[in-house]
Amino acid sequence: AVALSVLLTCCAAQTLDVDGDKIVEVLTRLANFSDHENPAVTRILFTPNDMLARKFVKDLMREANLVIREDPMGNIFGRWEGSDPTAPVVLTGSHTDAIPQAGMYDGTVGVIGAIEAVAALQRAGFRPARPLEVLMFSSEEPTRFGLSCSGSRALAGALREEELEGRRDAEGRHYLQVANEVGYGAASTSQLLATSRLPPGAVAHFVELHIEQGPLLEREGVSIGVVTAIAAPSALEVVFAGEGGHAGGQLMPDRNDAGLAGAELALAVEAAVLATGAADTVGTTGTFEVAPGAVNSVPREARLGIDIRDIDGPRRDGVVAAVLAAAQEIAEKRKVRLSSRVLNQDPPATCHPDIVEAVAGAAQQLGLASRRLVSRAYHDALFMARVAPTGMIFIPCRNGWSHRPDEFASPADIANGVRVLALTLARLAGGEWAKSEL
Amino acid sequence: AVALSVLLTCCAAQTLDVDGDKIVEVLTRLANFSDHENPAVTRILFTPNDMLARKFVKDLMREANLVIREDPMGNIFGRWEGSDPTAPVVLTGSHTDAIPQAGMYDGTVGVIGAIEAVAALQRAGFRPARPLEVLMFSSEEPTRFGLSCSGSRALAGALREEELEGRRDAEGRHYLQVANEVGYGAASTSQLLATSRLPPGAVAHFVELHIEQGPLLEREGVSIGVVTAIAAPSALEVVFAGEGGHAGGQLMPDRNDAGLAGAELALAVEAAVLATGAADTVGTTGTFEVAPGAVNSVPREARLGIDIRDIDGPRRDGVVAAVLAAAQEIAEKRKVRLSSRVLNQDPPATCHPDIVEAVAGAAQQLGLASRRLVSRAYHDALFMARVAPTGMIFIPCRNGWSHRPDEFASPADIANGVRVLALTLARLAGGEWAKSEL
Ligand SMILES: [Mn+2]
Ligand SMILES: [Mn+2]
Ligand SMILES: [Mn+2]
Ligand SMILES: [Mn+2]
Repeated sequence: AVALSVLLTCCAAQTLDVDGDKIVEVLTRLANFSDHENPAVTRILFTPNDMLARKFVKDLMREANLVIREDPMGNIFGRWEGSDPTAPVVLTGSHTDAIPQAGMYDGTVGVIGAIEAVAALQRAGFRPARPLEVLMFSSEEPTRFGLSCSGSRALAGALREEELEGRRDAEGRHYLQVANEVGYGAASTSQLLATSRLPPGAVAHFVELHIEQGPLLEREGVSIGVVTAIAAPSALEVVFAGEGGHAGGQLMPDRNDAGLAGAELALAVEAAVLATGAADTVGTTGTFEVAPGAVNSVPREARLGIDIRDIDGPRRDGVVAAVLAAAQEIAEKRKVRLSSRVLNQDPPATCHPDIVEAVAGAAQQLGLASRRLVSRAYHDALFMARVAPTGMIFIPCRNGWSHRPDEFASPADIANGVRVLALTLARLAGGEWAKSEL
Repeated sequence: AVALSVLLTCCAAQTLDVDGDKIVEVLTRLANFSDHENPAVTRILFTPNDMLARKFVKDLMREANLVIREDPMGNIFGRWEGSDPTAPVVLTGSHTDAIPQAGMYDGTVGVIGAIEAVAALQRAGFRPARPLEVLMFSSEEPTRFGLSCSGSRALAGALREEELEGRRDAEGRHYLQVANEVGYGAASTSQLLATSRLPPGAVAHFVELHIEQGPLLEREGVSIGVVTAIAAPSALEVVFAGEGGHAGGQLMPDRNDAGLAGAELALAVEAAVLATGAADTVGTTGTFEVAPGAVNSVPREARLGIDIRDIDGPRRDGVVAAVLAAAQEIAEKRKVRLSSRVLNQDPPATCHPDIVEAVAGAAQQLGLASRRLVSRAYHDALFMARVAPTGMIFIPCRNGWSHRPDEFASPADIANGVRVLALTLARLAGGEWAKSEL
């Protein structure tokens, strides 16, 4: 039966009808829902443009004959019923939110691409045994609440009530409040999380299609990345506070300039990362805010957001510890007060061998070059891996660029990724191809 | 006649009735017009709170029987006519605008205090020979247009049309536009400047009362600072631009992180200042903005506002040159693009000996300890010195703090400053004290 199924899939694959230009056209329409003018895309959780993007995605799901379900966190599911409706579901999806002035491919390729993969399977006459669901995760990006992957953390039961309640947006509001205002939400944060959590055993497999956000595939001219592990990210917030003062009146020996403490720490982050000597260790001071922020005022406060990642958990934790120690030293030397918080320090995830095999096999079947690699970027797959066998499919993106307006993936590469995703889903769900395709 | 006049002033001084608590009460009411909650004061040019503060000042001027005149830049004059109305005027004043989250004494003491000095002279029966005018300068602080002392520059004819037109606020609007919207302004920037400029010879003397914004007077227990020179400030804007990228996906060797270039430059500013070995050299990176400003994004741009001051012009220019050279080196090393602008590099000003003598004499007459000192902070007096003999009176402020919510000057010190200002104005204007005071 296994051999027959592979044979059927093999033949059907030749006829999988996926149009890269059409997908890019859909992605371009989606990019219009943005707080900045295209090509920059800014789409923050539960803002008007995020809500418009959600409607756009649901309309596409309906066109693909998917049955829509939304959970209180704002995760959106589109279900293609299987011939065995009680079987655990094969899930695929990604996110459509975007950090300020990002691009139009990060996340969106894995949502629009998943809908297109399902549509291509339908056109090819495939009928899944297990149910197939396309998922748009809520708030993969940390922009609004400082917490990435809020939706997938909740699905995986990896989000504690106190953690979510401790987060507020720039207006001082909670996830629960803003979720309720846009029509999601629940009576309490506790109910929000309990209702969103996936029941044990509900998911047979999870697979996510995504742009690489790194340079390897493009450099090597390889179409498909088969992800074997997802790097472990950590985020820190460090605040230095000094006395401030007038930039003219306060003499240099009388100063405790919080901005200079921040500058030293940003450089210390870089030094601590380079000190590991490992190519896989990266560290970034992505936010750097000084107050009061006037040219003629000595900074009274500096607030830094620091991101440290590695595929090796303990090595990453060593860098986190080195950065915190440097912050302490700098604070003492510059006589500023220090407060620091580890916002998250999640463990890395390993992709499931069954899915690694399914993806690699699908690429091979389509005649596409593939290579195994590690994801250094954060993904919802990191949390889905806690509750289901998980894998990821990467496609090349120009120069490895991401989180910037000129982020780019070619229509041909996107189409290849969608074909590989479609065949992977067919392999994982099992099922039948139309007789006519034989 | 000179001897008699001094004698008369001497006797009247004993009866100068100035109530420090009452002045602080007025300053506290003024502090309410703020975009941040008190004790923080934020009052930006031509915002609703600035307009309310202007009305408040004009009402006080009217209560003191001053005749109000406003110019197109928004400078407000309150005139006490002299017995010789055609004589050049004796001017005194300061500003009421405040940078974000500043305090309630910077500038305001020299406006409210000047009105109170005039009122005290009136109560003492003084009648000036030369006209006396109290002046509230428009936009001493650079917050809105990046240009400090806009009002006094215009009065002194030290503001070029292209320079003012080249400045835009955060909403991309010009001084002319916002001035017109609130009821100041003119048909063109050229007309705005021509109409605001003081006619040659119009001002006999200018004197400004201000908190020290430095620690010397408080440390030495001296009530009155007699300012002999005003330090020469320079402001730079430096922008580094790199490629940005994803904080997880972009490996360290592939980065050109603009934020780290900015961090290095902020530290280079400090190093260049300390390298002069002179206590009078100060340098500050007061603003530091990174874009896109997301924790998971490598900074694509860093924008720094740098302030460098010295009482020695050439030494300050040496620091400016060293900072610009450091920026160049950093840009090359980190492979980021650099653009830098010198926003201003004004020459220092020397106070006029006549006013230095008048202030020191007034303090002595009142039995107050005084010392000569240099102003390291920027003041409108810097520009008034270009068109009239100019001087400044400093009073102590707690810890030398300024530009912060806990900026503080005591009611007794404020009252002393106002008494010295009143006697100085009487000396400079000439005139008669009421017979009853003899
Ligand atoms: Mn992203
Ligand atoms: Mn993503
Ligand atoms: Mn100031
Ligand atoms: Mn001032």
